Amino acid sequence: MGVPSTALFTDQYELTMLQAALKAGTAERRSVFEVFTRRLPEGRRYGVVAGTGRVLDAVENFRFDEDQLGFLREQRIVDEQTLDWLAGYRFTGDIWGYPEGEVYFPGSPILRVEGSFAECVLLETVILSILNHDSAIAAAASRMASAAGERPLIEMGARRTHELAAVAAARAAYVGGFATTSDLAAGFRYGIPTVGTSAHAFTLLHDHERDAFKAQVDTLGPGTTLLVDTYDVAEAVRTAVEVAGPELGAVRIDSGDLLLVAHRVRQQLDELGATGTKIVVTSDLDEYAIASLAAAPVDAYGVGTQLVTGSGHPTASMVYKLVARAETADPGAPLVPVAKKSSGGKTSVGGRKWAARRLDADGVAEAEVVGTGPVPAELAGRQLLVRLVEDGRIVGREPLGVARERHIAARANLPLSATQLSRGEPVLVTEYAHERSGG
Amino acid sequence: MGVPSTALFTDQYELTMLQAALKAGTAERRSVFEVFTRRLPEGRRYGVVAGTGRVLDAVENFRFDEDQLGFLREQRIVDEQTLDWLAGYRFTGDIWGYPEGEVYFPGSPILRVEGSFAECVLLETVILSILNHDSAIAAAASRMASAAGERPLIEMGARRTHELAAVAAARAAYVGGFATTSDLAAGFRYGIPTVGTSAHAFTLLHDHERDAFKAQVDTLGPGTTLLVDTYDVAEAVRTAVEVAGPELGAVRIDSGDLLLVAHRVRQQLDELGATGTKIVVTSDLDEYAIASLAAAPVDAYGVGTQLVTGSGHPTASMVYKLVARAETADPGAPLVPVAKKSSGGKTSVGGRKWAARRLDADGVAEAEVVGTGPVPAELAGRQLLVRLVEDGRIVGREPLGVARERHIAARANLPLSATQLSRGEPVLVTEYAHERSGG
Repeated sequence: MGVPSTALFTDQYELTMLQAALKAGTAERRSVFEVFTRRLPEGRRYGVVAGTGRVLDAVENFRFDEDQLGFLREQRIVDEQTLDWLAGYRFTGDIWGYPEGEVYFPGSPILRVEGSFAECVLLETVILSILNHDSAIAAAASRMASAAGERPLIEMGARRTHELAAVAAARAAYVGGFATTSDLAAGFRYGIPTVGTSAHAFTLLHDHERDAFKAQVDTLGPGTTLLVDTYDVAEAVRTAVEVAGPELGAVRIDSGDLLLVAHRVRQQLDELGATGTKIVVTSDLDEYAIASLAAAPVDAYGVGTQLVTGSGHPTASMVYKLVARAETADPGAPLVPVAKKSSGGKTSVGGRKWAARRLDADGVAEAEVVGTGPVPAELAGRQLLVRLVEDGRIVGREPLGVARERHIAARANLPLSATQLSRGEPVLVTEYAHERSGG
Repeated sequence: MGVPSTALFTDQYELTMLQAALKAGTAERRSVFEVFTRRLPEGRRYGVVAGTGRVLDAVENFRFDEDQLGFLREQRIVDEQTLDWLAGYRFTGDIWGYPEGEVYFPGSPILRVEGSFAECVLLETVILSILNHDSAIAAAASRMASAAGERPLIEMGARRTHELAAVAAARAAYVGGFATTSDLAAGFRYGIPTVGTSAHAFTLLHDHERDAFKAQVDTLGPGTTLLVDTYDVAEAVRTAVEVAGPELGAVRIDSGDLLLVAHRVRQQLDELGATGTKIVVTSDLDEYAIASLAAAPVDAYGVGTQLVTGSGHPTASMVYKLVARAETADPGAPLVPVAKKSSGGKTSVGGRKWAARRLDADGVAEAEVVGTGPVPAELAGRQLLVRLVEDGRIVGREPLGVARERHIAARANLPLSATQLSRGEPVLVTEYAHERSGG
């Protein structure tokens, strides 16, 4: 399942910039790139960092093999000197970042990549691809998990997105609070628990719904989940309990007015003595539909399309910007803050940054503080960036469950309005604490 | 870049259905599954089939290796009998479909997969992942290409989507009418022409903008594209022409009021004698922004976010449904049409379908006709489904450029309102011509 090399997940301009900088003698200037977003998606209260673990894999596997170098040579994308340089490429710098599962806000320095200009500039596209995709999914997942409360969420959106984006989406959904996935590749690759029993096709394959239910129970046991909306729901529920007995694990409803149908099915199951049989609903859910079913007798939600498309926001708007670089290629040369200055609205804040989350007297987060220069003493213990890569060595790997737990804790530490589904401003204001006025 | 096996891009329920059908003796019933959508995205006039070539690769590589079987065994997802069956899995059936680049409408049988239930049911997720993703991107690309007219479009959205979704997106964009991509992996994998020169970071790396421009021109030649909006645009354009001479290939504008800035830059370039220097614009474009620049002196558009997110519709809503199956496992058993019947709104039309596009007297498409049973003689020459896989052998491979040309022709054959960007109904009505009343 692994991709052998990530080196061509790269926009061509990164290689042409490298070539020009090598020739100009500026390629070795020590540089600091930062990943941040200027804004959250419209109406969202917080962002969720996801994909960090995948970024570390991508950096480690960012090596040009013979086929790739042959392609670059044949297409004359870069010259021979640059190809030689690429052949020996290994990232040898440092990466710091918000740990996976942490929340973020506009201006949060989510990832900081430091090294020579040449080695850092090449990583722009692959890092942004991963963080923009995975964080968009995790943010949607987190909202759905808030809405679902204690009820488990099943990720089942693989068919609605690119087959490998689906695997990453299942991973991001798990970080954001989902419990399981239908995607076997996500179970295989990341150890996320997988679930699934049957579709309408299975019922339609058989001459009678009863035959299908019996076939399923015969091999998966009465604890399985039977899909009850192929023909008539009430009749299917009756048949299901007849076939599996009152120990039937669950029934799944995949169409119709879920609120109404769930109530009817619960009542019918109870009357049939199947009081322990659960109800799973799975039709076009998003965080609002989940919230609207809070009072319904539903035991689990399966979410597809809206999860893998970020519930209206399929990408985060993170950018990867040079914020500081050395005055010369000399290893000891001082760093100079840099920033785009044109009037087009895409300006950014220069300088190598730290970030800390300030708490109020009750211990609730009240501000995201981003600064350059020394960290104020009162914030030193609240810093957000952790070391992920040291001198090219990956040091920030962790089990996915740690990121998942971290997200639960980080969200719980935000003001209560964070988990309102209604549109609003980011729940934390980003404050800038700069060493110098301009930056 | 290839993924060794596509067999786990599968929802778990496909394997549990297989297990249950194997045990029940229904797994070998000959079955027909069809891919179709019940609706186009809100306001869209037509859909674009994309990903067919990737589907063929995925079907060919759908084989379970030892690691994958070990995972399924260890997680107890299916039993030993099913694992044995999976170990020998090769698709041996037939696939027919709309050829890649063709347009589609609600109810169009975009793909038809025929074989035993067991061999067909396993392909649901991977086929839908590919077609739903790629077709969504191609539809957005097609609208952008209509809006851009003769001006070329550059795909540069890799950083806004999953790193491998990006490669598929570049491919789908090419089918939909884009000319080039910034994504090197898409060039490597699919031979799509790649482009790219420099980002703001390259200017910021250098002590002066002039140094950056000089470094770039020194190695890429005066025909390169210089990015002119890092500091002051007018000053940058002046410097660019001074450094590269009037043979400067192009300038790129990536922020600000593109309409206004493009006019100013064109005037300035002309005054400087750089009358052949082109203007490329690349800031947050979608089909509407492209259309609004039709009268502006712009020579090419670079599109990122809105392309790879399907311009508001990041997924198509295609489903994969069992529409007919044999009454018994006997190879000669007659096919019975089947369809979900519950009142939930997700009903579908049973039966193995053909499709044809009827033309009006002027040779313009006027209806999408979908039927079961014999094809009316007057539509026999206008059938849309072509054979893609025959007895498990891939027969439908074609160069990507063929799909791209096919799309141009198919779109040109639609009523003129197809290329209006305003929201509206599908430009063709889908008519059903059924053998029997219910189906």
